Amino acid sequence: MFFEKTAILGVGLLGASLALALKKKGVSRSISGFGRTEENLRRAVGKGIIDSYSLDPREAVKGADLVVLATPVGSFTQTAHIIKDSVDKDSIQTDVGSVKGALVYELESILPRFVGAHPISGGERSGADNATDGLFDGVRCIITGTPRTDSRALDRIEGLWRALGAKVELMDPDLHDRVYAFVSHLPHILAYCLANTLDTADGEQIKFAGQGFKDTTRIALSSPELWRDVCSLNRNNLLDSIKEFRKELEKIEALIRQNDMAGLEAEFTRARSLRKRIDQKN
Amino acid sequence: MFFEKTAILGVGLLGASLALALKKKGVSRSISGFGRTEENLRRAVGKGIIDSYSLDPREAVKGADLVVLATPVGSFTQTAHIIKDSVDKDSIQTDVGSVKGALVYELESILPRFVGAHPISGGERSGADNATDGLFDGVRCIITGTPRTDSRALDRIEGLWRALGAKVELMDPDLHDRVYAFVSHLPHILAYCLANTLDTADGEQIKFAGQGFKDTTRIALSSPELWRDVCSLNRNNLLDSIKEFRKELEKIEALIRQNDMAGLEAEFTRARSLRKRIDQKN
Repeated sequence: MFFEKTAILGVGLLGASLALALKKKGVSRSISGFGRTEENLRRAVGKGIIDSYSLDPREAVKGADLVVLATPVGSFTQTAHIIKDSVDKDSIQTDVGSVKGALVYELESILPRFVGAHPISGGERSGADNATDGLFDGVRCIITGTPRTDSRALDRIEGLWRALGAKVELMDPDLHDRVYAFVSHLPHILAYCLANTLDTADGEQIKFAGQGFKDTTRIALSSPELWRDVCSLNRNNLLDSIKEFRKELEKIEALIRQNDMAGLEAEFTRARSLRKRIDQKN
Repeated sequence: MFFEKTAILGVGLLGASLALALKKKGVSRSISGFGRTEENLRRAVGKGIIDSYSLDPREAVKGADLVVLATPVGSFTQTAHIIKDSVDKDSIQTDVGSVKGALVYELESILPRFVGAHPISGGERSGADNATDGLFDGVRCIITGTPRTDSRALDRIEGLWRALGAKVELMDPDLHDRVYAFVSHLPHILAYCLANTLDTADGEQIKFAGQGFKDTTRIALSSPELWRDVCSLNRNNLLDSIKEFRKELEKIEALIRQNDMAGLEAEFTRARSLRKRIDQKN
């Protein structure tokens, strides 16, 4: 048993799945939950996802040797301030948020032994009802150590994710945000915008949306609250990635306008090669 | 048996799959093929996809009571001109192209009994090697009749697609191009542009592209030649759809810049609702 008691703050898809996985793999003996909705917490206890709950995060973290921030990432800083005087002095704190960067430095300055983590999992589902103990099996988990990170705490968080079957990768928090702006945050924004384009167009189109449209916009089913927070916290990188995307779109637009068939084919071939390389790498 | 001999001009994914399906369902007794690459045609004969072939489309259509244009859509008009004096005077001509609109009116003016058709199938694969006799099973097939379309020919093409298991839908050719610019052509352009954004960015990102990125760009694996032609033939509708998309993207960009969290959440929620409606309809 790695941990005696884990406090999971936010019992949504990621928090609840983590609770299930920690128990299944024998990583934590007991689990307490905190959340905003008592009904959700009560159901989570009923399903055996968590053992107890509190509507006060300070209560939930008491006696826990592991604390996990799993609320929408925009609330992490506030939550950290609320719990900082209640966490056990030997406890480790971590998170499962999609944004790292400056947030990790800030959380490390508030909580004594915070280690940033981002399991690349979840997809478009949300809520504890979709939780599964295999959500992290085989997925990549980025752990963002900094010069200030407590090295023993870092080791234990690495061990935790390996025990859950994740492929652990250490990365600088700022590089994480740069990379994920391009490979994840930008695609979400585009999926939302494409869906909105069809929403704004007349109602005839929607009936004819096929597999291509559905795949391209699948991630537009993701939680608006989560992605609102990501946009805010990774704003500069995201704006850069949108700018780069717009350059590519404007290039294609100009080629279409000029009816430059060879130019279009070359751009599409370049895109296809990149996409093929991704299939080969993963 | 609906047809004695079908000439399939262009033995790629769609043409070869159509040949297989026509034989399997007993819709055509024999099938001749035309293509640019003899090696491909010889292999198609070897695999029993077609019975004979010619490198001259005028030879391929001789004695055929059904002629199918299945080359890249940009070459349809030229091919129609080449074969017009060689097609049997009682034959029916059709196509499997992704663009209709003005092209249908043009082809109807060149070929005596042309009926435009667009089976919504194929995805990102291409080439006869990926052909399968079930490619059209359960898919939607748009048939674009016009006031000039021969009604008996239209009936027979409808019957053909129903026999192959497709869900037939009649639509005006111009409306087809308007609708498919938004639900199919625009998503392809965005997928290509997103892949190119990552290609232009440094090499570190590609390693971290996960399921979301892969789904969003899957259709960037599609044939550059095909999509080059679609861009050219459906230019105005496509430019309109890109313009509408850019409005949505600029809206999100402004909200991110202003850190308007409520505004972002509302836009994302609107997109998610639209996307959910599509899952419910299909």
